[in-house]
Amino acid sequence: MTKLQLLSSLGLGRNCFIRISWGGFRTISSSTAALTAKMSTECYTFGPYKIDPKEVFYSSPLSYAMVNLRPVVPGNVLVCPRREVKRFVDLTVDETSDLWQTAQRVGGGLECHHKASSLTFTIQDGPQSGQTVPHVHIHILPRREGDFERNDEIYDAIDVKEKEMQETLDLDKERKDRSPEEMSREADEYRSLFL
Amino acid sequence: MTKLQLLSSLGLGRNCFIRISWGGFRTISSSTAALTAKMSTECYTFGPYKIDPKEVFYSSPLSYAMVNLRPVVPGNVLVCPRREVKRFVDLTVDETSDLWQTAQRVGGGLECHHKASSLTFTIQDGPQSGQTVPHVHIHILPRREGDFERNDEIYDAIDVKEKEMQETLDLDKERKDRSPEEMSREADEYRSLFL
Repeated sequence: MTKLQLLSSLGLGRNCFIRISWGGFRTISSSTAALTAKMSTECYTFGPYKIDPKEVFYSSPLSYAMVNLRPVVPGNVLVCPRREVKRFVDLTVDETSDLWQTAQRVGGGLECHHKASSLTFTIQDGPQSGQTVPHVHIHILPRREGDFERNDEIYDAIDVKEKEMQETLDLDKERKDRSPEEMSREADEYRSLFL
Repeated sequence: MTKLQLLSSLGLGRNCFIRISWGGFRTISSSTAALTAKMSTECYTFGPYKIDPKEVFYSSPLSYAMVNLRPVVPGNVLVCPRREVKRFVDLTVDETSDLWQTAQRVGGGLECHHKASSLTFTIQDGPQSGQTVPHVHIHILPRREGDFERNDEIYDAIDVKEKEMQETLDLDKERKDRSPEEMSREADEYRSLFL
């Protein structure tokens, strides 16, 4: 029996295997605290906006992943290049590779964590495709049977949230969304998945 | 004045610059014929289905791009890993990098060719996200102002086409879509963009 078969027999799917292969069975809390402290000193921008590092739960040399102001489904997050790049075609080879390896890892971890069974990955690349913040970002959405009556309704929801996100990131407007504390707690939870 | 500024002053955008940097100003027809002949000897599968190499217009060591049976918008194509892989998380690091570098190049070329101004990139990763053919594939759609009344309607169209594609690829069903000749002509046209 392979390690994967063993995990499957324990009721753990393919994506859960990935998490275990990264994190093992060690105690996570102290590591998470250390990582949170380290990441809190980093600077993350999202187009013209500065992102609170407490809302970032994963980072790689060229990319980072953050929780969402108004998630469409549980685990709906964004993965972005660290460098401010408006269009996908403008990413370097290394940035493209790093961005999608990050998305692959983050998607796999969150699908498992939220007990979902599929994922939607979307880039709205340019204003005519629905992009509102001019900084490349991948929407990742864990999916499960019947989460939307019609599958494509999720994209309508993404479009609405994309516009709301831009408005809310505008510092001139009052923030009426999830509190920074709530988002920070979610980021802490996700951060521990990728140790 | 930089080369890009010069091209911009001639009315050629960023993506067009990419094409020129690949293809230069040489005569394309003989090169296209040679490439078409070379690619026609290759084998491409899409899940359980065999793809006619005449419908493939770009290939890299680990990925390929093909025209669509029923494109949602002009230039709507699919980019797939050569290896049959059901879920995105199952791609190797090299496959992930190659797939998205292919998508970046193909998207940039087709956006320019179709005089579009944005792109939609989507992976429906798993059946609960709308995937019908169990082989990772990126939908690429060149976008322009007002192509859909509401931006997210394009995803509804993708979902419809995805189901139709599965049905049509089923060899037990009669093909009532675009003819192989029509698709082959489109692939020839696109092939010349990436020489």
